[in-house]
Amino acid sequence: LKLPLGYRYATVYAGIRKVEKNDLSLIVSDRPANAAAVYTSNVVAAAPIQIARKHMTASRGLVKALLINAGNANCATRTGLAVAASTSKAVAAALACPVEQVIPSSTGVIGVELDAAKITGAMPSLVAALDADGFQRVADAIMTTDLVPKTAFASVGKGISIAGMTKGSGMIHPNMATTLGYVMTDAVVPAAALRAMLRRAIGVSYNSISVDGDQSTNDIVVVLANGASGVKPDLAKFEKALTEVLQSLAKQIAKDGEGAKKLVTIDVKGAKSTAEATRLARSIANSPLVKTAIAGADPNWGRIICAAGYSGVKFDPLKVDILFQGVAVCKSGLAADFDEDALKSKLDASEVEIRFVIKGAGKGVARFWTCDFTEGYIRINGSYRT
Amino acid sequence: LKLPLGYRYATVYAGIRKVEKNDLSLIVSDRPANAAAVYTSNVVAAAPIQIARKHMTASRGLVKALLINAGNANCATRTGLAVAASTSKAVAAALACPVEQVIPSSTGVIGVELDAAKITGAMPSLVAALDADGFQRVADAIMTTDLVPKTAFASVGKGISIAGMTKGSGMIHPNMATTLGYVMTDAVVPAAALRAMLRRAIGVSYNSISVDGDQSTNDIVVVLANGASGVKPDLAKFEKALTEVLQSLAKQIAKDGEGAKKLVTIDVKGAKSTAEATRLARSIANSPLVKTAIAGADPNWGRIICAAGYSGVKFDPLKVDILFQGVAVCKSGLAADFDEDALKSKLDASEVEIRFVIKGAGKGVARFWTCDFTEGYIRINGSYRT
Repeated sequence: LKLPLGYRYATVYAGIRKVEKNDLSLIVSDRPANAAAVYTSNVVAAAPIQIARKHMTASRGLVKALLINAGNANCATRTGLAVAASTSKAVAAALACPVEQVIPSSTGVIGVELDAAKITGAMPSLVAALDADGFQRVADAIMTTDLVPKTAFASVGKGISIAGMTKGSGMIHPNMATTLGYVMTDAVVPAAALRAMLRRAIGVSYNSISVDGDQSTNDIVVVLANGASGVKPDLAKFEKALTEVLQSLAKQIAKDGEGAKKLVTIDVKGAKSTAEATRLARSIANSPLVKTAIAGADPNWGRIICAAGYSGVKFDPLKVDILFQGVAVCKSGLAADFDEDALKSKLDASEVEIRFVIKGAGKGVARFWTCDFTEGYIRINGSYRT
Repeated sequence: LKLPLGYRYATVYAGIRKVEKNDLSLIVSDRPANAAAVYTSNVVAAAPIQIARKHMTASRGLVKALLINAGNANCATRTGLAVAASTSKAVAAALACPVEQVIPSSTGVIGVELDAAKITGAMPSLVAALDADGFQRVADAIMTTDLVPKTAFASVGKGISIAGMTKGSGMIHPNMATTLGYVMTDAVVPAAALRAMLRRAIGVSYNSISVDGDQSTNDIVVVLANGASGVKPDLAKFEKALTEVLQSLAKQIAKDGEGAKKLVTIDVKGAKSTAEATRLARSIANSPLVKTAIAGADPNWGRIICAAGYSGVKFDPLKVDILFQGVAVCKSGLAADFDEDALKSKLDASEVEIRFVIKGAGKGVARFWTCDFTEGYIRINGSYRT
């Protein structure tokens, strides 16, 4: 799969991280791209989020560059807004574009001043490093506690490419694990259509991992469509491909949960509505006791039905079937006969599927992704800041 | 502090637990006691909860005996209701009281049939063991993953005693950690007054540890007032003492969190209402990242303000002060100067206080208790069922 046309990527070490690892990145579209973005709904929104929203409105969704730093969230800082604005200006000056076409984003520790001089000082070398082949280097540079870089690619017909990268670790309640996501395409797509597609796709991707509701101060996902291919796609086909890219990225976040060893897919069927199915799936996905059971390869359906029971959704427990890896462990709310040793072996796999089915109740379905929950999580988060 | 008059306690090993440790307990009031109870709001309520509700209604809040087993939750079982009913009947027959004056409760694994014969078979030896001094033995016998038994005592004036016992481990979201609580008093208190007091007291005790909202299938707290002292208390004074007993029990649950080393008290001030203060406090208390930071003695106020930010309560981050152990680490939403090493030492204490203050906004206050979150939690919950 080839990268979309008309984008260049660069990353350098600007001294923001304590360790010498690239921490300042730039993604540039040769021509301003139609853009859509979703942001954290946290009351405490970091300075770059506030500036990104402002720029996106002022530019009417036309974006030339994404400026990304790791190592400092630029959140709850005295100089935050000024830093996000002035560093965006430095990018605009270097690329000779309006400042509102620059979207800043940051990830890292909060409450520590971010030194704008480190970013503006590195700007010449950053711009000089811009390269059409720099995609993977940027995907590497935006990682924080991530163990692996996360990218996804798709094509639509012959002429259109989509390439996405993301960072984030799917934790129990990943409040501080900032999620950043950047998707580039060379398709010709109007900004309004792009916004509508992103809104729909985010619901079944980033908002269907156990991240939702516990958003960090810095979360942002941006999609750029610069039209460099010259091809206007069938919008339904394009949306399908875009959704698959976003789902792949979201699943990679869930799988790379801090300390996690397994990707867990939770399918809910038979709820009265999509909203109720989503609420049930989220409650199961968020349960630390479900997640620790998965880590222990324990088909503990009692924890599943209990988590569903406190989700706020009313259902009849005696109509519930629960399956692990396709094996029914609970039928009509009661223990089913199954080969415990055989199922335990199946649960040692790196991907685990849980199905929660309410029989005869309705057509509401939802799919969520999460990870298991191991002792490694505690080690990572007990000493992250210092 | 002496035990309330007119109660006897017994516990035996009935073979319900796999390990030979007392698992069947009985608390009997010599005369039927006025009673009040609160139950889990989980959609999936265990059979004993359903029978307890039914008996409490049928007896109009008059209770002679509490039958308690550990080792099996009698939840999501084919025979659950029949078992809870028939074992209650066996108690009623042995004590010659109406069956509706017997309140059953259970804790342990769910989805496994509970053998009524084990309980009815042990009934003669259980009743024979009834003893006014058996209080502590029952407090020991109801423990599951608890590391320590939990009891609290109070007196009101000269004549009235209150004694409570509880079990439960305050986990992140302690969905399966059934909370059982039993409080006995010899005061003369009408059932209606007792119900109103319990409802108020539970809000600032059991519902103010990070348990709330994630209730297990088996949670129940019962208060019995048998009037054996012959003393009618000043109701305000009695309620204060009852509330203190319930708060002490709830704090002991929070402190004995699975794998926990520290009790964390979260005080929220300046919210627009009590409801908003409670929501902020709960969001902070439930954050695994806050809890892991406390385990690591890290005054990571970024995680506090982030958890407050996604609580759903609107507030101005620039009016927030955050204090750890009385030391301001965040003033008006920004990092404050403090001696990091000195504060880290203070955070090594077994009790940690976090204050979250919104300046000038309102009079809403709330206090929550939780625990730190250590690797031990994962070890315990990764292998609990099997």
